[in-house]
Amino acid sequence: MTKRNQLVVQKFGGSSLATEELLRNVAKIVCERRAKGTDLVVCVSAMGNTTDELLQLANRLSGERSPSPRETDALMSTGELVTAPLMGIAIRGLGHEAISLSGRQAGIRTDETYGSARIANIDPQRVLDELARGKIVVVAGFQGLTQAGDTATLGRGASDLTAVAIAAAINADVCEIYTDVDGIFTADPRLVPEARVIPHIGYEEMLEMASLGAKMNPRSIEMAAVHNVPMLITSTFNPNASGTRIGNFEDTDIDMEISKSITGAPTERSIGRVTMQGVEDRPGIAASIMTPLAEAGINVDVIVQNVSSDGLADISFTVKEENLVRAAEITSQNTDVDFASIATRDGLAKVSVVGTGMKNSPGYAARMFRALADAGVNIEMITTSEILITCIVEEAQLQAAANAVHAEFDLGTV
Amino acid sequence: MTKRNQLVVQKFGGSSLATEELLRNVAKIVCERRAKGTDLVVCVSAMGNTTDELLQLANRLSGERSPSPRETDALMSTGELVTAPLMGIAIRGLGHEAISLSGRQAGIRTDETYGSARIANIDPQRVLDELARGKIVVVAGFQGLTQAGDTATLGRGASDLTAVAIAAAINADVCEIYTDVDGIFTADPRLVPEARVIPHIGYEEMLEMASLGAKMNPRSIEMAAVHNVPMLITSTFNPNASGTRIGNFEDTDIDMEISKSITGAPTERSIGRVTMQGVEDRPGIAASIMTPLAEAGINVDVIVQNVSSDGLADISFTVKEENLVRAAEITSQNTDVDFASIATRDGLAKVSVVGTGMKNSPGYAARMFRALADAGVNIEMITTSEILITCIVEEAQLQAAANAVHAEFDLGTV
Repeated sequence: MTKRNQLVVQKFGGSSLATEELLRNVAKIVCERRAKGTDLVVCVSAMGNTTDELLQLANRLSGERSPSPRETDALMSTGELVTAPLMGIAIRGLGHEAISLSGRQAGIRTDETYGSARIANIDPQRVLDELARGKIVVVAGFQGLTQAGDTATLGRGASDLTAVAIAAAINADVCEIYTDVDGIFTADPRLVPEARVIPHIGYEEMLEMASLGAKMNPRSIEMAAVHNVPMLITSTFNPNASGTRIGNFEDTDIDMEISKSITGAPTERSIGRVTMQGVEDRPGIAASIMTPLAEAGINVDVIVQNVSSDGLADISFTVKEENLVRAAEITSQNTDVDFASIATRDGLAKVSVVGTGMKNSPGYAARMFRALADAGVNIEMITTSEILITCIVEEAQLQAAANAVHAEFDLGTV
Repeated sequence: MTKRNQLVVQKFGGSSLATEELLRNVAKIVCERRAKGTDLVVCVSAMGNTTDELLQLANRLSGERSPSPRETDALMSTGELVTAPLMGIAIRGLGHEAISLSGRQAGIRTDETYGSARIANIDPQRVLDELARGKIVVVAGFQGLTQAGDTATLGRGASDLTAVAIAAAINADVCEIYTDVDGIFTADPRLVPEARVIPHIGYEEMLEMASLGAKMNPRSIEMAAVHNVPMLITSTFNPNASGTRIGNFEDTDIDMEISKSITGAPTERSIGRVTMQGVEDRPGIAASIMTPLAEAGINVDVIVQNVSSDGLADISFTVKEENLVRAAEITSQNTDVDFASIATRDGLAKVSVVGTGMKNSPGYAARMFRALADAGVNIEMITTSEILITCIVEEAQLQAAANAVHAEFDLGTV
């Protein structure tokens, strides 16, 4: 029986490909890996800010009418269609065989939700055929083909998703995401000097970290979890970075070694809060409040409801600060709900702790609240899930809050 | 019976689309036409020099190895893939419905001769469907899909070809090519101040004009002739230009009105000549000389052979000046042919007259030679066909030659 080569999907983002020199650097990283006998699929984003510039041009040309989503997607997909053959050419220039494929050619089929299409399925035959021919297969990320034969894009930052989806479809040993940082940190290193790279993290925890500010597309983590694709998040620019491995470590020896109860303390800035006071308390009231916001495309994050003694409730929810005014406006015009008054507050932030180790262990919440209190941080709102505790605090106190929590759970040491 | 709208294919080249403002200007031209009730397919090139810049980047990245033609084509096709949705968006911004299609989506199927693929066939169903929905259909020029599902480009300047091919496939009333000049001139206006735009020209004559320097892709004229597609060459920038109509005018009233025997006097600069002296004269000798040149990709233009009394021949042929040294080298190394010596000459140019009116009328050649002689221009080589007389002259005498011929045949007046 012949030993099968290791099969790896590597993904490089726009900041790793922003210039000719960077593109050459990535080609070198790819070829060095190939020289070790690894079979490679390389998934690439558009170079630097290409996509943003095209979008701005489209908006100017479109005048008062917003550009058709289908046309916008056809346009936005071209950035990756440039990078892919350039990377193929650069790899060949370094002496290895390569072929570039568009999302369509790589067999990525999507629904027709232009701008944030979901991958319907992948036919990886062409990718597998080219791998079998000994080629490094370069795939244009971020895009796929609809049933109607049109190009749809998967949403901003979704080249990660392309990489994971292909890794799942070809049963790759690992999907490696190359970025401009060394990995996933225990906290934002700009806020917490002791923050360090997390060596291993489970999908569930990573999903909370991703949605709480670590720069990863949550959909790619979801897909990796569903298809059990091991991932590595590491640096394009620091060859010594060991990165963060994402996977199922629960049944492995590694679990024993790394089992910290808390994995990280992600933070998020620029949060606003809407509070509705004196809301009639009846079934379905939360849905009545949230529906018009969802229809306006406003994402509601933390929701807290208190019932007062007179049968009326206070309901608070947070939104991105940029959406605060519109969220309050929409809510105040909501005729489906009886309420007494509305108040808004900006200048808030979010600090959380994430960790599967806290499952069924109520002590963690108390430790977090105590640490924040000792640091003089006032908690405005609280929400918890099985593996997550989130506190809304004043943005001015975010740094103090993040450092206090990071220290309390000893996240700065392995 | 309902009256069918006029159906027109418009093609805009890179210089008409080089900037955001120019793109907007083209969208305006398209919409004004649409407002008159015309059904439109708009075929676009890449913006300005996009394609050249991508090619240079590819060459740098490729190092010593030349880039794979397949990858180069995937890369080069992206320029048009950007322009097409931008044009679609700009047209929609002006209030008309539009949809952009890639070459693939427009049903253009090619062979696999990357860099200069030939169109194998067109399936125009998608284009027809979108027209039936009342949309202006914007098509990315210059590209098609191979049987293997890869993108191939049709050669530099071949967006014209895309436009004509689509016009043929959908049976359009006319294919309009918008350029940065007012039409096809009787002579190069930089050389001949009296040169004027030719109002009507037959395919056969236009083919000679196109291959002799007028800026048109000869393959598009050939295709228009085969499928009998009427064309109009006109200006993007001069709304008052009436342009040049290309078509079959032989059986129409127009023929009577415009029938000049000579249509134009095209010229070409920078020609070199190779002369082989004392060549053994046997069947197949010309083929033996031309084959290695063709294999080296060198295009041979005018060929003249004289047999001398001793049974040996002198054979002269012209090439582009830039290929002269290599052509002489290849010819001197030709072991299939016995010859005495080789001479080369650079600094030559070509002046021709084109016109179906000279068919079977030998007097035209004599008039041309007399006009050149009277202007003091020495003729180095002569070649003729049914509708063409070409003289090779010194490049220094080209202006005198062109003006003499233009005046002799009264080309400056309608």
